[in-house]
Amino acid sequence: MNVDFECYPCFFHQAINVAGMIGVDEKIMRDILCEVSRLIPTISPEITPPLIGRQVYQIVSRLTGVEDPFKDAKKQCTEQALALYPSLKDKVASSSDRLLMAVRVAIAGNVIDFGSNVAFDLGKDVQSILTQEFAICHYGEYRKGLAKAQRILYLADNAGECVFDRVLIEEIGKPVTYVVREKPIINDAVREDALAAGIGEVANIISSGTDAPGNILPLCSEEFLKIYGDADFIISKGQGNYEGLSGEDRPLFFLLKAKCPVIAKNIGVERGSILLMQAQSG
Amino acid sequence: MNVDFECYPCFFHQAINVAGMIGVDEKIMRDILCEVSRLIPTISPEITPPLIGRQVYQIVSRLTGVEDPFKDAKKQCTEQALALYPSLKDKVASSSDRLLMAVRVAIAGNVIDFGSNVAFDLGKDVQSILTQEFAICHYGEYRKGLAKAQRILYLADNAGECVFDRVLIEEIGKPVTYVVREKPIINDAVREDALAAGIGEVANIISSGTDAPGNILPLCSEEFLKIYGDADFIISKGQGNYEGLSGEDRPLFFLLKAKCPVIAKNIGVERGSILLMQAQSG
Repeated sequence: MNVDFECYPCFFHQAINVAGMIGVDEKIMRDILCEVSRLIPTISPEITPPLIGRQVYQIVSRLTGVEDPFKDAKKQCTEQALALYPSLKDKVASSSDRLLMAVRVAIAGNVIDFGSNVAFDLGKDVQSILTQEFAICHYGEYRKGLAKAQRILYLADNAGECVFDRVLIEEIGKPVTYVVREKPIINDAVREDALAAGIGEVANIISSGTDAPGNILPLCSEEFLKIYGDADFIISKGQGNYEGLSGEDRPLFFLLKAKCPVIAKNIGVERGSILLMQAQSG
Repeated sequence: MNVDFECYPCFFHQAINVAGMIGVDEKIMRDILCEVSRLIPTISPEITPPLIGRQVYQIVSRLTGVEDPFKDAKKQCTEQALALYPSLKDKVASSSDRLLMAVRVAIAGNVIDFGSNVAFDLGKDVQSILTQEFAICHYGEYRKGLAKAQRILYLADNAGECVFDRVLIEEIGKPVTYVVREKPIINDAVREDALAAGIGEVANIISSGTDAPGNILPLCSEEFLKIYGDADFIISKGQGNYEGLSGEDRPLFFLLKAKCPVIAKNIGVERGSILLMQAQSG
Protein backbone atom coordinates (compact mmCIF):
# COMPACT_ATOMS: atom_id res chain seq x y z
CA MET A 1 0.00 0.00 0.00
CA ASN A 2 1.39 3.38 -0.98
CA VAL A 3 1.70 6.35 1.30
CA ASP A 4 -1.30 8.72 1.36
CA PHE A 5 -1.19 12.46 1.97
CA GLU A 6 -3.15 11.84 5.17
CA CYS A 7 -0.09 9.93 6.44
CA TYR A 8 1.98 13.15 6.48
CA PRO A 9 0.34 14.70 9.57
CA CYS A 10 0.30 11.24 11.14
CA PHE A 11 4.11 11.01 10.97
CA PHE A 12 4.19 14.11 13.19
CA HIS A 13 1.56 12.62 15.53
CA GLN A 14 3.67 9.46 15.85
CA ALA A 15 6.79 11.47 16.64
CA ILE A 16 4.91 13.57 19.22
CA ASN A 17 3.42 10.46 20.84
CA VAL A 18 6.65 8.56 21.20
CA ALA A 19 8.72 11.59 22.23
CA GLY A 20 5.96 12.45 24.72
CA MET A 21 6.11 8.93 26.12
CA ILE A 22 9.89 9.29 26.56
CA GLY A 23 9.29 12.65 28.23
CA VAL A 24 11.54 14.91 26.15
CA ASP A 25 11.91 18.62 26.81
CA GLU A 26 10.65 21.31 24.43
CA LYS A 27 13.96 21.77 22.68
CA ILE A 28 14.35 18.11 21.80
CA MET A 29 10.68 17.87 20.75
CA ARG A 30 11.22 20.82 18.41
CA ASP A 31 14.42 19.26 17.01
CA ILE A 32 12.57 15.98 16.42
CA LEU A 33 9.67 17.66 14.59
CA CYS A 34 12.04 19.75 12.48
CA GLU A 35 13.85 16.58 11.40
CA VAL A 36 10.52 14.89 10.64
CA SER A 37 9.56 17.92 8.53
CA ARG A 38 12.72 17.37 6.49
CA LEU A 39 11.55 13.84 5.64
CA ILE A 40 8.39 15.15 3.95
CA PRO A 41 9.99 16.32 0.67
CA THR A 42 11.80 12.95 0.39
CA ILE A 43 8.57 10.92 0.36
CA SER A 44 8.07 9.28 -3.00
CA PRO A 45 4.44 8.37 -3.83
CA GLU A 46 5.32 4.70 -4.39
CA ILE A 47 6.68 3.93 -0.96
CA THR A 48 4.78 2.28 1.85
CA PRO A 49 4.04 4.23 5.09
CA PRO A 50 6.02 2.01 7.51
CA LEU A 51 9.17 2.97 5.63
CA ILE A 52 8.68 6.57 6.76
CA GLY A 53 7.38 5.41 10.15
CA ARG A 54 10.71 3.64 10.60
CA GLN A 55 12.63 6.84 9.81
CA VAL A 56 10.45 8.82 12.24
CA TYR A 57 11.25 6.41 15.07
CA GLN A 58 14.93 6.43 14.11
CA ILE A 59 14.93 10.21 14.45
CA VAL A 60 13.34 9.99 17.89
CA SER A 61 15.78 7.30 19.01
CA ARG A 62 18.79 9.20 17.72
CA LEU A 63 17.81 12.54 19.29
CA THR A 64 16.77 11.06 22.63
CA GLY A 65 19.25 8.21 22.95
CA VAL A 66 16.34 5.91 23.83
CA GLU A 67 16.40 2.82 21.62
CA ASP A 68 13.34 0.98 22.87
CA PRO A 69 10.88 3.51 24.36
CA PHE A 70 8.05 0.97 24.49
CA LYS A 71 10.01 -1.69 26.40
CA ASP A 72 7.98 -1.35 29.60
CA ALA A 73 4.67 -0.81 27.79
CA LYS A 74 5.28 -3.98 25.76
CA LYS A 75 6.00 -5.99 28.90
CA GLN A 76 2.82 -4.71 30.54
CA CYS A 77 0.76 -5.58 27.46
CA THR A 78 2.10 -9.12 27.47
CA GLU A 79 1.26 -9.48 31.16
CA GLN A 80 -2.28 -8.17 30.62
CA ALA A 81 -2.74 -10.47 27.64
CA LEU A 82 -1.44 -13.50 29.56
CA ALA A 83 -4.01 -12.78 32.26
CA LEU A 84 -6.71 -13.00 29.58
CA TYR A 85 -5.28 -16.18 28.02
CA PRO A 86 -7.32 -18.73 30.05
CA SER A 87 -10.60 -16.98 29.23
CA LEU A 88 -9.64 -16.77 25.53
CA LYS A 89 -8.98 -20.52 25.53
CA ASP A 90 -12.38 -21.06 27.15
CA LYS A 91 -14.05 -18.96 24.44
CA VAL A 92 -12.49 -21.15 21.77
CA ALA A 93 -13.26 -24.40 23.58
CA SER A 94 -16.94 -23.53 23.97
CA SER A 95 -17.37 -22.27 20.41
CA SER A 96 -19.23 -24.24 17.73
CA ASP A 97 -16.49 -23.27 15.26
CA ARG A 98 -13.25 -23.33 17.20
CA LEU A 99 -11.02 -22.18 14.32
CA LEU A 100 -13.20 -19.18 13.51
CA MET A 101 -13.30 -18.17 17.17
CA ALA A 102 -9.51 -18.51 17.33
CA VAL A 103 -9.24 -16.22 14.28
CA ARG A 104 -11.44 -13.72 16.12
CA VAL A 105 -9.22 -13.96 19.18
CA ALA A 106 -6.12 -13.30 17.05
CA ILE A 107 -7.79 -10.23 15.50
CA ALA A 108 -8.96 -9.06 18.93
CA GLY A 109 -5.30 -8.94 20.00
CA ASN A 110 -4.72 -6.44 17.22
CA VAL A 111 -6.36 -3.69 19.32
CA ILE A 112 -2.94 -3.42 21.00
CA ASP A 113 -1.21 -0.63 19.12
CA PHE A 114 0.87 2.31 20.24
CA GLY A 115 1.65 3.40 16.70
CA SER A 116 -1.85 4.40 15.62
CA ASN A 117 -3.64 7.35 17.18
CA VAL A 118 -6.20 5.16 18.88
CA ALA A 119 -6.25 4.52 22.60
CA PHE A 120 -7.27 1.04 23.69
CA ASP A 121 -8.67 -0.73 26.73
CA LEU A 122 -7.50 -4.30 26.28
CA GLY A 123 -10.10 -6.24 28.27
CA LYS A 124 -13.06 -4.20 27.00
CA ASP A 125 -11.95 -3.94 23.36
CA VAL A 126 -11.20 -7.65 23.13
CA GLN A 127 -14.68 -8.51 24.37
CA SER A 128 -16.27 -6.22 21.83
CA ILE A 129 -14.26 -7.63 18.91
CA LEU A 130 -15.17 -11.20 19.85
CA THR A 131 -18.76 -10.41 18.90
CA GLN A 132 -18.16 -7.74 16.22
CA GLU A 133 -19.40 -8.49 12.71
CA PHE A 134 -16.61 -9.02 10.16
CA ALA A 135 -16.47 -6.35 7.42
CA ILE A 136 -14.63 -8.88 5.22
CA CYS A 137 -14.49 -12.58 6.08
CA HIS A 138 -12.86 -15.02 3.64
CA TYR A 139 -13.18 -17.80 6.17
CA GLY A 140 -14.12 -20.52 3.67
CA GLU A 141 -10.96 -19.89 1.65
CA TYR A 142 -8.96 -19.59 4.84
CA ARG A 143 -10.09 -22.95 6.22
CA LYS A 144 -9.59 -24.72 2.91
CA GLY A 145 -6.12 -23.22 2.41
CA LEU A 146 -5.11 -24.08 5.93
CA ALA A 147 -6.25 -27.71 5.58
CA LYS A 148 -3.87 -28.22 2.64
CA ALA A 149 -1.05 -26.01 3.95
CA GLN A 150 2.30 -27.56 4.83
CA ARG A 151 4.55 -24.54 5.25
CA ILE A 152 2.65 -22.01 7.35
CA LEU A 153 4.12 -18.60 8.04
CA TYR A 154 2.62 -16.35 10.71
CA LEU A 155 3.74 -12.70 10.52
CA ALA A 156 3.47 -11.16 13.98
CA ASP A 157 2.48 -7.61 14.74
CA ASN A 158 2.62 -6.25 18.28
CA ALA A 159 3.90 -7.41 21.65
CA GLY A 160 1.04 -8.65 23.81
CA GLU A 161 -0.87 -9.52 20.65
CA CYS A 162 1.44 -12.56 20.50
CA VAL A 163 -0.57 -14.15 23.31
CA PHE A 164 -3.69 -13.94 21.12
CA ASP A 165 -1.71 -15.33 18.18
CA ARG A 166 -0.71 -18.27 20.35
CA VAL A 167 -4.40 -19.16 20.78
CA LEU A 168 -4.82 -19.31 17.00
CA ILE A 169 -1.59 -21.25 16.45
CA GLU A 170 -2.66 -23.81 19.03
CA GLU A 171 -5.94 -24.23 17.15
CA ILE A 172 -4.20 -24.60 13.78
CA GLY A 173 -2.43 -27.66 15.17
CA LYS A 174 0.26 -27.77 12.46
CA PRO A 175 3.88 -26.61 12.46
CA VAL A 176 3.99 -22.83 12.22
CA THR A 177 6.89 -20.44 11.68
CA TYR A 178 6.28 -17.24 13.62
CA VAL A 179 8.00 -14.11 12.26
CA VAL A 180 8.97 -11.20 14.50
CA ARG A 181 10.91 -7.96 13.83
CA GLU A 182 14.67 -8.03 14.10
CA LYS A 183 14.93 -4.93 16.31
CA PRO A 184 12.52 -2.95 18.52
CA ILE A 185 10.28 -0.53 16.61
CA ILE A 186 7.25 1.04 18.33
CA ASN A 187 5.58 -1.82 20.23
CA ASP A 188 6.13 -4.39 17.50
CA ALA A 189 6.99 -7.87 18.70
CA VAL A 190 10.62 -8.99 18.73
CA ARG A 191 11.82 -12.47 19.72
CA GLU A 192 11.81 -11.62 23.42
CA ASP A 193 8.13 -10.58 23.28
CA ALA A 194 7.12 -13.74 21.42
CA LEU A 195 8.95 -15.86 23.98
CA ALA A 196 7.29 -14.02 26.87
CA ALA A 197 3.92 -14.83 25.28
CA GLY A 198 4.76 -18.53 25.15
CA ILE A 199 5.06 -18.67 21.36
CA GLY A 200 8.29 -20.65 21.74
CA GLU A 201 6.21 -23.62 22.93
CA VAL A 202 3.89 -23.67 19.89
CA ALA A 203 5.89 -22.35 16.92
CA ASN A 204 9.35 -21.85 15.49
CA ILE A 205 10.28 -18.18 15.96
CA ILE A 206 12.35 -16.42 13.29
CA SER A 207 13.11 -12.78 12.50
CA SER A 208 12.19 -11.03 9.27
CA GLY A 209 15.46 -9.16 9.54
CA THR A 210 13.78 -5.77 9.50
CA ASP A 211 13.33 -2.99 12.02
CA ALA A 212 10.48 -1.39 10.07
CA PRO A 213 6.99 -1.46 11.65
CA GLY A 214 5.77 -3.78 8.91
CA ASN A 215 7.28 -6.48 6.68
CA ILE A 216 8.66 -4.36 3.87
CA LEU A 217 10.30 -7.02 1.72
CA PRO A 218 13.27 -4.97 0.42
CA LEU A 219 14.26 -4.43 4.07
CA CYS A 220 13.96 -8.10 5.06
CA SER A 221 16.81 -10.61 5.30
CA GLU A 222 17.57 -13.08 2.51
CA GLU A 223 16.94 -15.90 4.96
CA PHE A 224 13.43 -14.62 5.65
CA LEU A 225 12.71 -13.97 1.97
CA LYS A 226 13.51 -17.59 1.14
CA ILE A 227 11.12 -18.90 3.80
CA TYR A 228 8.50 -16.35 2.71
CA GLY A 229 8.86 -17.47 -0.93
CA ASP A 230 8.49 -21.15 0.02
CA ALA A 231 5.47 -20.72 2.32
CA ASP A 232 2.14 -22.07 1.06
CA PHE A 233 -0.03 -20.29 3.63
CA ILE A 234 0.78 -16.91 5.18
CA ILE A 235 -1.11 -15.27 8.02
CA SER A 236 -0.32 -11.55 8.15
CA LYS A 237 -1.29 -9.75 11.34
CA GLY A 238 -1.99 -6.07 11.66
CA GLN A 239 -1.80 -2.85 9.72
CA GLY A 240 1.96 -2.51 9.25
CA ASN A 241 2.22 -5.92 7.58
CA TYR A 242 -0.80 -5.12 5.41
CA GLU A 243 0.84 -1.87 4.31
CA GLY A 244 4.00 -3.69 3.34
CA LEU A 245 2.39 -6.73 1.65
CA SER A 246 -1.02 -5.67 0.28
CA GLY A 247 0.11 -5.84 -3.35
CA GLU A 248 1.89 -9.22 -3.05
CA ASP A 249 1.04 -12.20 -5.22
CA ARG A 250 1.30 -14.76 -2.43
CA PRO A 251 -1.14 -17.04 -0.50
CA LEU A 252 -1.70 -14.35 2.11
CA PHE A 253 -4.52 -13.80 4.59
CA PHE A 254 -4.66 -10.48 6.40
CA LEU A 255 -6.07 -10.50 9.93
CA LEU A 256 -6.50 -7.05 11.34
CA LYS A 257 -8.57 -4.31 12.86
CA ALA A 258 -8.57 -1.27 10.53
CA LYS A 259 -7.70 1.42 13.09
CA CYS A 260 -6.10 3.86 10.65
CA PRO A 261 -8.46 5.81 8.34
CA VAL A 262 -6.04 5.59 5.41
CA ILE A 263 -5.83 1.80 5.63
CA ALA A 264 -9.61 1.51 6.08
CA LYS A 265 -10.09 3.64 2.95
CA ASN A 266 -7.52 1.59 1.03
CA ILE A 267 -9.33 -1.66 1.89
CA GLY A 268 -12.74 -0.06 1.37
CA VAL A 269 -14.19 -0.60 4.85
CA GLU A 270 -15.28 1.60 7.74
CA ARG A 271 -12.64 2.60 10.25
CA GLY A 272 -12.74 0.17 13.19
CA SER A 273 -13.72 -2.79 11.01
CA ILE A 274 -12.30 -6.26 11.59
CA LEU A 275 -11.18 -8.42 8.68
CA LEU A 276 -10.05 -11.87 7.70
CA MET A 277 -9.12 -11.06 4.12
CA GLN A 278 -7.42 -13.10 1.43
CA ALA A 279 -4.89 -11.12 -0.64
CA GLN A 280 -6.57 -10.15 -3.90
CA SER A 281 -3.82 -11.71 -5.96
CA GLY A 282 -3.25 -14.54 -3.48
CA MET B 1 -1.85 31.75 23.00
CA ASN B 2 1.40 30.21 21.80
CA VAL B 3 1.70 27.47 19.22
CA ASP B 4 1.70 23.90 20.58
CA PHE B 5 3.52 20.91 19.09
CA GLU B 6 0.10 19.37 18.41
CA CYS B 7 -0.52 22.27 15.98
CA TYR B 8 2.24 20.98 13.67
CA PRO B 9 0.30 18.00 12.26
CA CYS B 10 -2.81 20.21 12.18
CA PHE B 11 -1.11 22.62 9.75
CA PHE B 12 -0.79 19.68 7.35
CA HIS B 13 -4.42 18.68 7.96
CA GLN B 14 -5.52 22.22 7.16
CA ALA B 15 -3.51 22.27 3.94
CA ILE B 16 -4.90 18.87 2.90
CA ASN B 17 -8.46 19.96 3.68
CA VAL B 18 -8.36 23.19 1.74
CA ALA B 19 -6.39 21.76 -1.20
CA GLY B 20 -8.83 18.84 -1.25
CA MET B 21 -11.75 21.25 -1.33
CA ILE B 22 -10.16 23.02 -4.31
CA GLY B 23 -9.62 19.62 -5.93
CA VAL B 24 -5.91 19.78 -6.68
CA ASP B 25 -4.03 16.95 -8.40
CA GLU B 26 -1.41 14.81 -6.65
CA LYS B 27 1.54 16.84 -7.84
CA ILE B 28 0.19 20.12 -6.51
CA MET B 29 -0.87 18.47 -3.25
CA ARG B 30 2.67 17.16 -2.82
CA ASP B 31 4.15 20.58 -3.62
CA ILE B 32 1.83 22.20 -1.07
CA LEU B 33 2.75 19.74 1.68
CA CYS B 34 6.46 20.08 0.93
CA GLU B 35 6.17 23.85 1.29
CA VAL B 36 4.22 23.43 4.54
CA SER B 37 6.99 21.14 5.80
CA ARG B 38 9.47 23.94 5.17
CA LEU B 39 7.48 26.19 7.52
CA ILE B 40 7.98 23.83 10.46
CA PRO B 41 11.61 24.74 11.27
CA THR B 42 10.65 28.45 11.15
CA ILE B 43 8.05 28.15 13.92
CA SER B 44 9.18 30.05 16.99
CA PRO B 45 7.60 28.91 20.28
CA GLU B 46 6.26 32.38 21.04
CA ILE B 47 4.06 32.83 18.01
CA THR B 48 0.34 32.23 17.86
CA PRO B 49 -1.06 29.42 15.64
CA PRO B 50 -3.12 31.60 13.23
CA LEU B 51 0.13 33.20 12.10
CA ILE B 52 1.24 29.84 10.70
CA GLY B 53 -2.32 29.05 9.57
CA ARG B 54 -2.16 32.22 7.50
CA GLN B 55 1.08 31.08 5.85
CA VAL B 56 -0.40 27.63 5.16
CA TYR B 57 -3.37 29.17 3.33
CA GLN B 58 -1.07 31.56 1.48
CA ILE B 59 0.90 28.55 0.21
CA VAL B 60 -2.30 26.84 -0.97
CA SER B 61 -3.52 30.04 -2.68
CA ARG B 62 -0.19 30.65 -4.36
CA LEU B 63 0.24 27.10 -5.67
CA THR B 64 -3.37 26.71 -6.83
CA GLY B 65 -4.13 30.26 -7.96
CA VAL B 66 -7.36 30.09 -5.94
CA GLU B 67 -7.62 33.11 -3.65
CA ASP B 68 -10.91 32.40 -1.91
CA PRO B 69 -11.55 28.63 -1.94
CA PHE B 70 -14.37 28.91 0.61
CA LYS B 71 -16.35 31.56 -1.30
CA ASP B 72 -19.23 29.23 -2.19
CA ALA B 73 -19.17 27.40 1.14
CA LYS B 74 -19.35 30.74 2.97
CA LYS B 75 -22.33 31.84 0.89
CA GLN B 76 -24.13 28.58 1.60
CA CYS B 77 -23.46 28.88 5.34
CA THR B 78 -24.91 32.38 5.37
CA GLU B 79 -28.02 31.18 3.54
CA GLN B 80 -28.46 28.27 5.96
CA ALA B 81 -27.98 30.59 8.91
CA LEU B 82 -30.46 33.14 7.55
CA ALA B 83 -33.03 30.35 7.28
CA LEU B 84 -32.54 29.70 11.01
CA TYR B 85 -32.69 33.40 11.94
CA PRO B 86 -36.46 33.62 12.64
CA SER B 87 -36.35 30.60 14.97
CA LEU B 88 -33.29 32.03 16.76
CA LYS B 89 -35.15 35.30 17.33
CA ASP B 90 -38.11 33.30 18.70
CA LYS B 91 -35.79 31.47 21.10
CA VAL B 92 -34.54 34.79 22.46
CA ALA B 93 -38.02 36.34 22.63
CA SER B 94 -39.41 33.44 24.64
CA SER B 95 -36.46 33.20 27.01
CA SER B 96 -36.60 34.38 30.64
CA ASP B 97 -33.12 35.90 30.19
CA ARG B 98 -33.03 37.29 26.66
CA LEU B 99 -29.42 38.49 26.78
CA LEU B 100 -28.09 35.15 28.01
CA MET B 101 -30.04 33.30 25.32
CA ALA B 102 -28.65 35.71 22.70
CA VAL B 103 -25.13 34.94 23.98
CA ARG B 104 -25.91 31.23 23.57
CA VAL B 105 -27.15 31.87 20.05
CA ALA B 106 -23.93 33.73 19.18
CA ILE B 107 -21.83 30.85 20.54
CA ALA B 108 -24.01 28.32 18.70
CA GLY B 109 -23.04 30.03 15.44
CA ASN B 110 -19.43 29.23 16.26
CA VAL B 111 -20.00 25.59 15.21
CA ILE B 112 -19.46 26.87 11.66
CA ASP B 113 -15.79 26.26 10.99
CA PHE B 114 -13.90 24.89 8.02
CA GLY B 115 -10.52 25.50 9.61
CA SER B 116 -10.77 22.99 12.44
CA ASN B 117 -10.90 19.27 11.81
CA VAL B 118 -14.48 18.98 12.99
CA ALA B 119 -17.43 18.41 10.68
CA PHE B 120 -20.64 20.21 11.60
CA ASP B 121 -24.35 19.92 10.97
CA LEU B 122 -25.59 23.47 11.43
CA GLY B 123 -29.23 22.89 12.37
CA LYS B 124 -28.50 19.99 14.71
CA ASP B 125 -25.39 21.42 16.35
CA VAL B 126 -27.05 24.77 17.01
CA GLN B 127 -29.96 23.08 18.77
CA SER B 128 -27.61 21.10 20.97
CA ILE B 129 -25.54 24.16 21.95
CA LEU B 130 -28.65 26.12 22.90
CA THR B 131 -29.16 23.70 25.79
CA GLN B 132 -25.52 22.73 26.47
CA GLU B 133 -24.11 23.56 29.92
CA PHE B 134 -21.44 26.30 29.88
CA ALA B 135 -17.96 25.08 30.91
CA ILE B 136 -17.11 28.68 31.83
CA CYS B 137 -19.77 31.38 32.15
CA HIS B 138 -18.80 34.86 33.35
CA TYR B 139 -22.29 36.12 32.60
CA GLY B 140 -22.58 38.36 35.66
CA GLU B 141 -19.42 40.25 34.73
CA TYR B 142 -20.53 40.30 31.10
CA ARG B 143 -23.93 41.83 31.84
CA LYS B 144 -22.46 44.40 34.22
CA GLY B 145 -19.72 45.38 31.78
CA LEU B 146 -22.15 45.67 28.95
CA ALA B 147 -24.54 47.90 30.94
CA LYS B 148 -21.77 50.47 31.44
CA ALA B 149 -20.15 50.04 28.03
CA GLN B 150 -20.11 52.91 25.55
CA ARG B 151 -17.62 51.78 22.92
CA ILE B 152 -18.46 48.17 22.12
CA LEU B 153 -16.29 46.22 19.73
CA TYR B 154 -17.46 42.88 18.34
CA LEU B 155 -14.72 40.77 16.71
CA ALA B 156 -16.32 38.49 14.14
CA ASP B 157 -15.20 34.97 13.34
CA ASN B 158 -16.75 33.02 10.47
CA ALA B 159 -19.16 33.73 7.62
CA GLY B 160 -22.65 32.43 8.44
CA GLU B 161 -21.83 32.87 12.12
CA CYS B 162 -22.45 36.59 11.47
CA VAL B 163 -26.20 35.86 11.38
CA PHE B 164 -25.97 34.52 14.93
CA ASP B 165 -23.90 37.53 15.95
CA ARG B 166 -26.65 39.77 14.59
CA VAL B 167 -29.09 38.22 17.06
CA LEU B 168 -26.79 39.12 19.95
CA ILE B 169 -26.09 42.61 18.64
CA GLU B 170 -29.84 43.27 18.32
CA GLU B 171 -30.26 42.21 21.94
CA ILE B 172 -27.40 44.43 23.14
CA GLY B 173 -29.32 47.42 21.81
CA LYS B 174 -26.34 49.80 21.84
CA PRO B 175 -24.05 51.00 19.05
CA VAL B 176 -21.64 48.23 18.12
CA THR B 177 -18.59 48.22 15.86
CA TYR B 178 -18.33 44.88 14.10
CA VAL B 179 -14.82 43.83 13.01
CA VAL B 180 -14.22 41.54 10.03
CA ARG B 181 -11.02 40.34 8.29
CA GLU B 182 -9.55 42.50 5.55
CA LYS B 183 -9.16 39.66 3.03
CA PRO B 184 -10.57 36.14 2.66
CA ILE B 185 -8.87 33.52 4.84
CA ILE B 186 -10.48 30.09 5.30
CA ASN B 187 -14.18 30.78 5.95
CA ASP B 188 -13.58 33.84 8.11
CA ALA B 189 -16.03 36.68 7.64
CA VAL B 190 -15.09 39.61 5.44
CA ARG B 191 -17.23 42.71 4.87
CA GLU B 192 -19.28 41.03 2.14
CA ASP B 193 -20.22 38.14 4.49
CA ALA B 194 -21.23 40.51 7.28
CA LEU B 195 -23.40 42.51 4.87
CA ALA B 196 -25.03 39.32 3.55
CA ALA B 197 -25.93 38.43 7.14
CA GLY B 198 -27.61 41.81 7.66
CA ILE B 199 -24.97 43.13 10.07
CA GLY B 200 -24.94 46.41 8.14
CA GLU B 201 -28.40 47.16 9.57
CA VAL B 202 -27.40 46.69 13.21
CA ALA B 203 -23.71 47.66 13.50
CA ASN B 204 -20.90 49.66 11.98
CA ILE B 205 -18.67 47.25 10.04
CA ILE B 206 -14.91 47.82 9.96
CA SER B 207 -11.92 45.69 8.99
CA SER B 208 -9.12 44.69 11.34
CA GLY B 209 -6.76 45.08 8.42
CA THR B 210 -5.51 41.51 8.67
CA ASP B 211 -5.82 38.41 6.53
CA ALA B 212 -4.84 36.08 9.39
CA PRO B 213 -7.51 33.71 10.71
CA GLY B 214 -7.55 35.53 14.04
CA ASN B 215 -6.91 39.08 15.22
CA ILE B 216 -3.15 39.02 15.62
CA LEU B 217 -2.49 42.59 16.68
CA PRO B 218 0.90 43.09 14.99
CA LEU B 219 -0.81 42.25 11.69
CA CYS B 220 -3.77 44.62 12.21
CA SER B 221 -4.11 48.13 10.78
CA GLU B 222 -3.31 51.26 12.81
CA GLU B 223 -6.91 52.38 12.34
CA PHE B 224 -8.19 49.18 13.92
CA LEU B 225 -5.62 49.27 16.73
CA LYS B 226 -6.80 52.74 17.72
CA ILE B 227 -10.43 51.65 17.90
CA TYR B 228 -9.39 48.48 19.74
CA GLY B 229 -7.41 50.55 22.24
CA ASP B 230 -10.35 52.90 22.88
CA ALA B 231 -13.04 50.20 23.27
CA ASP B 232 -14.44 49.66 26.75
CA PHE B 233 -16.13 46.32 26.00
CA ILE B 234 -14.85 43.76 23.49
CA ILE B 235 -16.67 40.63 22.43
CA SER B 236 -14.25 38.20 20.78
CA LYS B 237 -15.82 35.36 18.82
CA GLY B 238 -14.21 32.04 18.08
CA GLN B 239 -10.94 30.21 18.39
CA GLY B 240 -8.75 32.25 16.04
CA ASN B 241 -9.46 35.48 17.91
CA TYR B 242 -8.87 33.71 21.23
CA GLU B 243 -5.50 32.46 19.99
CA GLY B 244 -4.51 35.98 18.97
CA LEU B 245 -5.83 37.84 22.03
CA SER B 246 -5.80 35.43 25.00
CA GLY B 247 -2.93 37.22 26.74
CA GLU B 248 -4.28 40.75 26.24
CA ASP B 249 -4.93 43.16 29.11
CA ARG B 250 -8.19 44.52 27.73
CA PRO B 251 -11.92 44.32 28.70
CA LEU B 252 -12.38 41.22 26.58
CA PHE B 253 -15.01 38.48 26.69
CA PHE B 254 -14.38 35.34 24.65
CA LEU B 255 -17.43 33.58 23.23
CA LEU B 256 -16.57 30.27 21.63
CA LYS B 257 -16.95 26.57 21.29
CA ALA B 258 -13.61 24.88 22.02
CA LYS B 259 -13.39 22.60 18.97
CA CYS B 260 -9.61 22.31 18.88
CA PRO B 261 -7.95 20.08 21.53
CA VAL B 262 -5.00 22.47 21.93
CA ILE B 263 -7.26 25.44 22.66
CA ALA B 264 -9.42 23.37 25.01
CA LYS B 265 -6.27 22.31 26.89
CA ASN B 266 -5.01 25.90 26.98
CA ILE B 267 -8.28 27.11 28.53
CA GLY B 268 -8.53 24.06 30.78
CA VAL B 269 -11.85 22.69 29.55
CA GLU B 270 -13.04 19.57 27.74
CA ARG B 271 -12.99 19.63 23.96
CA GLY B 272 -16.44 20.63 22.68
CA SER B 273 -17.12 22.94 25.65
CA ILE B 274 -18.88 26.27 25.21
CA LEU B 275 -17.66 29.37 27.01
CA LEU B 276 -18.48 32.96 27.84
CA MET B 277 -15.15 33.85 29.41
CA GLN B 278 -13.74 37.13 30.63
CA ALA B 279 -10.06 37.65 29.75
CA GLN B 280 -8.03 36.85 32.87
CA SER B 281 -6.30 40.19 32.83
CA GLY B 282 -9.40 41.97 31.52
